Amino acid sequence: MSKQFGPEYVRAIAPYQAGKPISEVAREFGLDEEHIVKLASNENPFGVPDSAKQAMARAAADLGRYPDANGFELKQALSQRYDVPMEWITLGNGSNDILEIAAHAFVEKGQSVVYAQYSFAVYALATQGIGARHIVVPARDHGHDLDAMLDAIEDDTRLVFIANPNNPTGTFIPGSEIEAFLQKVPANVVVVLDEAYNEFLDKEDQYESAAWVRQYPNLLVSRTFSKAYGLAGLRVGFALAQPQLTDLMNRIRQPFNVNSLAQAAAIAALNDSEFLERSARNNAAGYQQFVEAFEKMGLQYVPSYGNFVLVKVGNDLGAGARINLALLKQGVIVRPVGNYGLPEWLRISIGLPQENAVLIAALQKALGEGLAE
Amino acid sequence: MSKQFGPEYVRAIAPYQAGKPISEVAREFGLDEEHIVKLASNENPFGVPDSAKQAMARAAADLGRYPDANGFELKQALSQRYDVPMEWITLGNGSNDILEIAAHAFVEKGQSVVYAQYSFAVYALATQGIGARHIVVPARDHGHDLDAMLDAIEDDTRLVFIANPNNPTGTFIPGSEIEAFLQKVPANVVVVLDEAYNEFLDKEDQYESAAWVRQYPNLLVSRTFSKAYGLAGLRVGFALAQPQLTDLMNRIRQPFNVNSLAQAAAIAALNDSEFLERSARNNAAGYQQFVEAFEKMGLQYVPSYGNFVLVKVGNDLGAGARINLALLKQGVIVRPVGNYGLPEWLRISIGLPQENAVLIAALQKALGEGLAE
Repeated sequence: MSKQFGPEYVRAIAPYQAGKPISEVAREFGLDEEHIVKLASNENPFGVPDSAKQAMARAAADLGRYPDANGFELKQALSQRYDVPMEWITLGNGSNDILEIAAHAFVEKGQSVVYAQYSFAVYALATQGIGARHIVVPARDHGHDLDAMLDAIEDDTRLVFIANPNNPTGTFIPGSEIEAFLQKVPANVVVVLDEAYNEFLDKEDQYESAAWVRQYPNLLVSRTFSKAYGLAGLRVGFALAQPQLTDLMNRIRQPFNVNSLAQAAAIAALNDSEFLERSARNNAAGYQQFVEAFEKMGLQYVPSYGNFVLVKVGNDLGAGARINLALLKQGVIVRPVGNYGLPEWLRISIGLPQENAVLIAALQKALGEGLAE
Repeated sequence: MSKQFGPEYVRAIAPYQAGKPISEVAREFGLDEEHIVKLASNENPFGVPDSAKQAMARAAADLGRYPDANGFELKQALSQRYDVPMEWITLGNGSNDILEIAAHAFVEKGQSVVYAQYSFAVYALATQGIGARHIVVPARDHGHDLDAMLDAIEDDTRLVFIANPNNPTGTFIPGSEIEAFLQKVPANVVVVLDEAYNEFLDKEDQYESAAWVRQYPNLLVSRTFSKAYGLAGLRVGFALAQPQLTDLMNRIRQPFNVNSLAQAAAIAALNDSEFLERSARNNAAGYQQFVEAFEKMGLQYVPSYGNFVLVKVGNDLGAGARINLALLKQGVIVRPVGNYGLPEWLRISIGLPQENAVLIAALQKALGEGLAE
């Protein structure tokens, strides 16, 4: 009789490394929370939109009740926005939940899942969590190599994850290339197109993935309210797909996975185009601020389409961890990405102009100290 | 090439039937939301404690940030309350999440899970969702038959679910019997003791399951803030278990599964003993109110230790559905339990005295109509 609990593939999981919360950094480094700048988790520096706060206040009276398990009102709003029937929508406890549900709903132990090197860590976790086989396709210029991903699909492949823009590298695949991929992928392979950062794209880069859902029965588009919409702390994401996929998602989904305040806040945020535009403008300006500073400092970075930039802070395998620590000591939290196989790099979220300035000064100081060692 | 997506065991899942939200009943039956009484989901009729509302208001400023993935402050509060190390605690998006995580963390496809007939529907869903085999042990007097459950354990059994008190029947197993079961169960079988309704137990029925966790490395105790604590809409539950189990739970758990407001509200609610006592008093009084009415009406009911009562509303297999519809038309929402194999019964949550009175009057009317048909 085995003394170990759990399947071998579960015991082999390395848990997700979340960014350190401000309170934890304050405790660890003896800093004042008020003076800490967090540019680590690709959050919206404006926080929650006022419209969403007002919606939450109205919904607060009913919090002793379970949430609407069917998410009627939020699905109705999403249905109108994306011009798909309500029955094509799955709500998630953040898009992390959507990605996990998709793995459970479409893949069983021993079958394979395809995703790209340097793409979002949850693809590996979701694959490992069901005992499926990982097919990791080498990146091209830190981004997805769709031709290679197509070639990598095997008979037992049931799911392909594509992040666009990609996290943590910020790379982007033009819509035409994704559509070409969808036309060629086997019809029994589900394609999860993870568009967590979609709302930061310039108009000329936007493409109509919601419309593709009508055309491709094997496409599931995943979105989140955690990034541009500013609702990371509330947990709400959603998926668009035809009923054959959505029905399976709903069989795996926990019935009360999306809390009541998240549902109310998401409806308000969805309709707050002013907030979204302001966030996108701030992001574009902050990106320029970072890029100019990195170029002045002679730092290599990956051109980003998201609300963060991947920047190379040294040439040795300890660079990312070393500079990260030097930043933490100055009260600046960013994301080391050694767990992605990128130990020389840091992922830095775009904040408010003054937060970005603090990061730039702290990074200059950290790099200077590094040189002096 | 199969044209069907998803594993066969996923396609075979019958999704959870959630109670109808008030808004949906109002839409369907053309009723005014204000006049609807919902006694369907074992919610706390007092709603969210004021202490939790204040904690949420303080936490609201940070909702643009991701939640603390490690739940430091809530785990600290739980650690003090239950006298277990923080590393023994898993937080869940409601205890539904805890139950699902346990199934994924401890069982793989083809292995078996033991649970009792008429016990919580999520046990069957979590088992089916991973392609595991169900061993459903016949109930004794609508409750768990622990001797039979012990006998039912097979070589490939990895998990036993026990609900105490049980939902939807309200039955209770004395602590001494559960401890005897724990002493006999094979050491490689995880026992999930689901105590969602624990806080409604009288003092003389309480037992020290948190202390058992120290003694039994295969025991996981599951609790929720959705019932007595009044936080159903926010989604927060937790598990207590030794590190060997907790580490596996954390490998499967989605890192941001518990939203920020839920974490803040749960800390406040945990320390609000006045609210908990008031809720328990209201529940005891409401139980008496129901029991006296059911006895006057000559209705059979299962003596309940939870915040709900299972009552038999007829002798034919259509009785539950028929009386449920008659209640809905009167604006009273309760829970039909045909999906539990109890089609002659309804599960009625205990509400405020006036809500209970509305239910009793509506039930009398519905039963009278039934007789007249």
